[in-house]
Amino acid sequence: MTNKRKIINDPVHGFIAIAHPLVFDLLEHPYMQRLRNIKQVALGHYVYPGATHSRFQHALGALHLLSLAIDTLRLKGHTISPDEAEAAAAAILLHDVGHGPFSHALEHSLAEGVEHETLSRLLMHQLNAQFGGRLSLAIEIFEDRYHKRFLHQLISSQIDVDRLDYLKRDSFYTGVTEGSIGSERIIKMLNVVDDQLVVEAKGIYSVEKFLIARRLMYWQVYMHKTVVAAEQTLIQMLRRARAIAQEGEQLDASPALRFFLQNRITAHQFEQGGASGPLARFVLLDDADIMVAAKQWMSHPDVALAMLAQMLVHRRLPAIDLKNIPFEAEQIEQHRRQLCVAQPAIAPHTDYFVFSKALSIRAYQPGNESIKILHNDGRLVDVAEASDILSTGALSNEAKKYILCYPKRLV
Amino acid sequence: MTNKRKIINDPVHGFIAIAHPLVFDLLEHPYMQRLRNIKQVALGHYVYPGATHSRFQHALGALHLLSLAIDTLRLKGHTISPDEAEAAAAAILLHDVGHGPFSHALEHSLAEGVEHETLSRLLMHQLNAQFGGRLSLAIEIFEDRYHKRFLHQLISSQIDVDRLDYLKRDSFYTGVTEGSIGSERIIKMLNVVDDQLVVEAKGIYSVEKFLIARRLMYWQVYMHKTVVAAEQTLIQMLRRARAIAQEGEQLDASPALRFFLQNRITAHQFEQGGASGPLARFVLLDDADIMVAAKQWMSHPDVALAMLAQMLVHRRLPAIDLKNIPFEAEQIEQHRRQLCVAQPAIAPHTDYFVFSKALSIRAYQPGNESIKILHNDGRLVDVAEASDILSTGALSNEAKKYILCYPKRLV
Amino acid sequence: MTNKRKIINDPVHGFIAIAHPLVFDLLEHPYMQRLRNIKQVALGHYVYPGATHSRFQHALGALHLLSLAIDTLRLKGHTISPDEAEAAAAAILLHDVGHGPFSHALEHSLAEGVEHETLSRLLMHQLNAQFGGRLSLAIEIFEDRYHKRFLHQLISSQIDVDRLDYLKRDSFYTGVTEGSIGSERIIKMLNVVDDQLVVEAKGIYSVEKFLIARRLMYWQVYMHKTVVAAEQTLIQMLRRARAIAQEGEQLDASPALRFFLQNRITAHQFEQGGASGPLARFVLLDDADIMVAAKQWMSHPDVALAMLAQMLVHRRLPAIDLKNIPFEAEQIEQHRRQLCVAQPAIAPHTDYFVFSKALSIRAYQPGNESIKILHNDGRLVDVAEASDILSTGALSNEAKKYILCYPKRLV
Amino acid sequence: MTNKRKIINDPVHGFIAIAHPLVFDLLEHPYMQRLRNIKQVALGHYVYPGATHSRFQHALGALHLLSLAIDTLRLKGHTISPDEAEAAAAAILLHDVGHGPFSHALEHSLAEGVEHETLSRLLMHQLNAQFGGRLSLAIEIFEDRYHKRFLHQLISSQIDVDRLDYLKRDSFYTGVTEGSIGSERIIKMLNVVDDQLVVEAKGIYSVEKFLIARRLMYWQVYMHKTVVAAEQTLIQMLRRARAIAQEGEQLDASPALRFFLQNRITAHQFEQGGASGPLARFVLLDDADIMVAAKQWMSHPDVALAMLAQMLVHRRLPAIDLKNIPFEAEQIEQHRRQLCVAQPAIAPHTDYFVFSKALSIRAYQPGNESIKILHNDGRLVDVAEASDILSTGALSNEAKKYILCYPKRLV
Repeated sequence: MTNKRKIINDPVHGFIAIAHPLVFDLLEHPYMQRLRNIKQVALGHYVYPGATHSRFQHALGALHLLSLAIDTLRLKGHTISPDEAEAAAAAILLHDVGHGPFSHALEHSLAEGVEHETLSRLLMHQLNAQFGGRLSLAIEIFEDRYHKRFLHQLISSQIDVDRLDYLKRDSFYTGVTEGSIGSERIIKMLNVVDDQLVVEAKGIYSVEKFLIARRLMYWQVYMHKTVVAAEQTLIQMLRRARAIAQEGEQLDASPALRFFLQNRITAHQFEQGGASGPLARFVLLDDADIMVAAKQWMSHPDVALAMLAQMLVHRRLPAIDLKNIPFEAEQIEQHRRQLCVAQPAIAPHTDYFVFSKALSIRAYQPGNESIKILHNDGRLVDVAEASDILSTGALSNEAKKYILCYPKRLV
Repeated sequence: MTNKRKIINDPVHGFIAIAHPLVFDLLEHPYMQRLRNIKQVALGHYVYPGATHSRFQHALGALHLLSLAIDTLRLKGHTISPDEAEAAAAAILLHDVGHGPFSHALEHSLAEGVEHETLSRLLMHQLNAQFGGRLSLAIEIFEDRYHKRFLHQLISSQIDVDRLDYLKRDSFYTGVTEGSIGSERIIKMLNVVDDQLVVEAKGIYSVEKFLIARRLMYWQVYMHKTVVAAEQTLIQMLRRARAIAQEGEQLDASPALRFFLQNRITAHQFEQGGASGPLARFVLLDDADIMVAAKQWMSHPDVALAMLAQMLVHRRLPAIDLKNIPFEAEQIEQHRRQLCVAQPAIAPHTDYFVFSKALSIRAYQPGNESIKILHNDGRLVDVAEASDILSTGALSNEAKKYILCYPKRLV
Repeated sequence: MTNKRKIINDPVHGFIAIAHPLVFDLLEHPYMQRLRNIKQVALGHYVYPGATHSRFQHALGALHLLSLAIDTLRLKGHTISPDEAEAAAAAILLHDVGHGPFSHALEHSLAEGVEHETLSRLLMHQLNAQFGGRLSLAIEIFEDRYHKRFLHQLISSQIDVDRLDYLKRDSFYTGVTEGSIGSERIIKMLNVVDDQLVVEAKGIYSVEKFLIARRLMYWQVYMHKTVVAAEQTLIQMLRRARAIAQEGEQLDASPALRFFLQNRITAHQFEQGGASGPLARFVLLDDADIMVAAKQWMSHPDVALAMLAQMLVHRRLPAIDLKNIPFEAEQIEQHRRQLCVAQPAIAPHTDYFVFSKALSIRAYQPGNESIKILHNDGRLVDVAEASDILSTGALSNEAKKYILCYPKRLV
Repeated sequence: MTNKRKIINDPVHGFIAIAHPLVFDLLEHPYMQRLRNIKQVALGHYVYPGATHSRFQHALGALHLLSLAIDTLRLKGHTISPDEAEAAAAAILLHDVGHGPFSHALEHSLAEGVEHETLSRLLMHQLNAQFGGRLSLAIEIFEDRYHKRFLHQLISSQIDVDRLDYLKRDSFYTGVTEGSIGSERIIKMLNVVDDQLVVEAKGIYSVEKFLIARRLMYWQVYMHKTVVAAEQTLIQMLRRARAIAQEGEQLDASPALRFFLQNRITAHQFEQGGASGPLARFVLLDDADIMVAAKQWMSHPDVALAMLAQMLVHRRLPAIDLKNIPFEAEQIEQHRRQLCVAQPAIAPHTDYFVFSKALSIRAYQPGNESIKILHNDGRLVDVAEASDILSTGALSNEAKKYILCYPKRLV
């Protein structure tokens, strides 16, 4: 019999203990192993070379924080049974298992309209069948059907261990040290009231800092204009490849990738497909499939595809303008006309090269799923109200910026 | 001849180079060496045991950041002569030289109404005489009389290298990692417009985070209720000692400390005193004088003094209540009455043991000396306006809390 | 004109400045960009999930340390011209450009008998042609033909900036904090005597620690038995794929990878091939080609290939025994026989699954290229002699261990 | 009732939990609080300004590592009762409680021939009386009279939690990052065989690194020649003060310090003294008493005392020569003669200013109390034998250096 206790080294949190045999088995499953090959911040490493960390590491980190949170809540007198703890651990480990290549960047490019959460859920159900029902409680928690709602909120809410890990981890690996947050300290401030997760009053400054750090990471990393330009190039390349594939051409690509280029798979098809359906192909995909295909497409006869692939592979990114208001159609048109003149061969495809995109974030969403501050007198107050420094309106408004991309040199 | 280039190890910034011979000489001067014995965060180590760092280290750290800032500004095309750089370095090194024992905690206890800046200025003038005028430019910069005002602003403004060092350092030594800021990144965003220090637009998120982190450090460290209680105990002890001293008793204390207990020295007296005046005694004082005296006072016949000294030395801190509104006089009176009953011997002195105090901070001060954000189009905007998440009003309002201290056990 | 000054964030060293326009251009070249997709420690991340860092980052880190070293030597009075500094920078940036997929792990699998240094050299010459001779001095330094030999030694010797970066970086990313070394401190101790790089006497403890840390990293990371087992599985898979390819089958693989499976390319062929020869195909390869092919091979009809690919992709690693003396042939045979019984289909190929391998390291190599300690009286002493704690013999002897791998479960 | 669970922030280890009420009470006791005012590395901060950390922090850190070690051993199946765990925790917390001002630096200056361990033991017995015998088991463990000897070895041996904390902590605070060790990793490798503490075989590289790091810290920090010069100045100043005090003069000093200057207290007297004996005075002493006295002595009429006090307070340290062989008597004499000429007033006291001192360390002591490596086959081997890189002889030999100190400027 194999020893299923394991300690894993993590540069962010130190030693991570795998305490539950079920979790150990999930970790060894090909579905989890696949996440090793999906970068957490997609093309973020094109700006921050250190940020090559994977979804696999993030899942481990979130698992670690979850177990700290459970320890904390137990110390404060809340009962969490071993089964509940194991289920929550399984749920957090699998929460991102449905991510495809380059995570969010391609979320709607390979299978339009299908969220990664949907796929995570489908894969969890499939695993539950394989594991003889041992994941049923984990799924209940994941789908927020379990009465101890705080277990779901630990896994998925505005102050869940998912965010508490990824902000700290992305800050660590990008070297944007300012984005770091006091994950452990916030966890020590957690408590439960009426089955809801809350933060004790003395944690308010930590929560404020967490919200501000999150915002900083959005603009400085996830929506850094160069990162967005790189990811848009990736999206446009796949869009062009799909257009070609759907005209019937057998594009050079791994079979799994080719399948998704040739077919438009809906959420419904994923659900109905069974064990050999689209889901079985999806779990064969990771970042490498895209990059290897791109390298081959660099010499494809379709000039647009070839050019996009070269831009991506050689990191020859477009020029980017950034504004707080939308770009005027005329300005976009002008860039397209210049491109037509400079490169007549891609004239029919200028929209792949010149385009505008709105970036928006909302730091915080008040209302039902808000972060609740627990005052010493027992009152629960939404953090947007409890904070006297964060502008409530601003917090919950969408902040928007606009970028305009166009080829750098028109030779 | 001694080699006056020196590299000093600093756990916060790594290696700190002493580039100017003048700075080397200042560093070796007894006035600077004295700062080794003054803790940066006074009694902060009563809550955060790691925070034993000194004003001396902080001065070195600020010096280091100043030289990074000057490198950055030069790279951006601003001319800063070697003399100006040396003068700014001397000024930042000496900016806190006038701090007395326990820094801010005792700022008004030993010499009422005398700010440490006043004493820093006086000592800088005295040093200038000793150094044959080599500090004249440093003093001009320090006193904001030099036309390149940004040099003064680097040393003293709302985003000066003083704050950029102490927030990072205090966060490091307390272990309150959330308070850490991206000092180096902010420095790389600095620029100069019309001789004024500004922050480039892309640095706005870092500045927001800096303001939030500063606020967090205030409530979590500098104004942590237990830290305040400890410092108030220290203040009350000295108040009682002074009362006794001024009745003519020769209290056990070092001669320098006894001098300040027996006499009320005004800023004017400091200025007029000459080389052997109060300033000469002041520079002999540091944290140790207070603590050694306190140990002796633990067995003083005056019960109030003895008790306060024991509370301080043995860290037997008072109980503390905390509220957002002032405590009612009646509540305070009640605690005093209970104390009278429990310890009749200190009945005449209950105000040393039961007292309320308002704590207040203002995260940011708009107006003349505000932090200016430089937009790409050249506009300068106050950060309170430029930030869409910080509540402008809240930022510049005073946040207030109130504590009520009273003896823990009344045996 | 593009601004060719650039600052890059690195989680290990902080901010890295790109000071030379030539270096900036090299960094943007596809040959350097390719290194983003080659993991520094190959399959090390199968044991240390954090270790996904790339050769690209390492090259940047080594570049950074080189510039620190040059600053240090200049401060100590050694003349290094701007051209020399630029050339050394170019040389360190390109020192690993000839690494193929999974770096050392596959060094002899794709092109037998061709060292990565050979390919680095060939690529540097090719780049020199592209850059109109601007790399000539860099190549002279790289090939150790330049009279200031210390420049070569900074780039390639037993205490070069290559090692000073990779030990620190690998320690950082694996989380094996003990492997960390004082790179900056060692650099500050460097000096030059008769054009040779030496370490000043007070640096002896740092050098001892560097040698011990290197050894620790070898056994704990690079030669960790599970890492070796994973890499051996990778090697065996490619060996099997090559065997099949050479029987004429068109294996699923990217064209570049297929080329190297079908042909045995010698160093000579690389050299003679010209711009469209094997080198042009080589620079299209990275880790992703191997992993995507492996995923396809999981369902290949050749049972041996399919099984090896599954083991690699799903991280189903073989069992591993470890000893200080070689395994006996009989023991290996026994495992093979058991495998034949359990899985008759792979009976002809048991040597792909059951094999032994010797691991060996030599911490230090005395002699010509040794680390020289410079004593205060001017004497130069080999570190193996200068150290009174390191066992000279042991240091320079090969330390050997043996592993035996065989399939875990024989169903 | 006060809540006696407490979490303390530590910049080195993160959060430290105080799990046992007894430990909480000890922590609050004046004997432990006194350690806040004793610097862990005495005058180390004269070279490494960051190193102002106290014995109090170190005690907390060692406590934290002890609890990790106990968790580890329990996980490996060794029974450790709650009482044993509490007793071990109390013992480690108090292990240094007998340190006087400036720790080792003054160990034999205030009370000749009295080790700090003796005083720790006496104070523990006194505390045991105060705590009604609750410390009996702690004392048994401390004095190595308990049958589970590994508990004593965790607290006091060549790889105890004392060293595992102070090396890491001193490295952290000095900024000498190379001295850092993998304390947590080593702890995870601990095991128990026949009631003896051992290290599992795979931990051998970590132990080697620990020994090398310790050696590095000795020469780079604890025995840094400038640190030694500063501490010798301190020792000579106290020697001179004692000489004067014993001639009957009432020196300016706190009563407790004056007592130890006027009397020569033996270990026997400490033991017999009872509650009001020398021990009661000893526990009033800390670093501050010495520094405040030194400031007063700067203007003492005895030229030698005044000069030594000035050197110490103003950090005007002597010149230092360093050699691997003893200095010749003639050389020392020559410096003394020059001093006589330059400063006739101190002619009778030149031995306070010109002196030589041997520094020696032994990295490791084989034999009875050696570090035992547990091989997979159950054999126990001394680390000096098990390591193939550390030179066994060298490890256990004393390494010696010699310094010669003399005044810098003879005006």
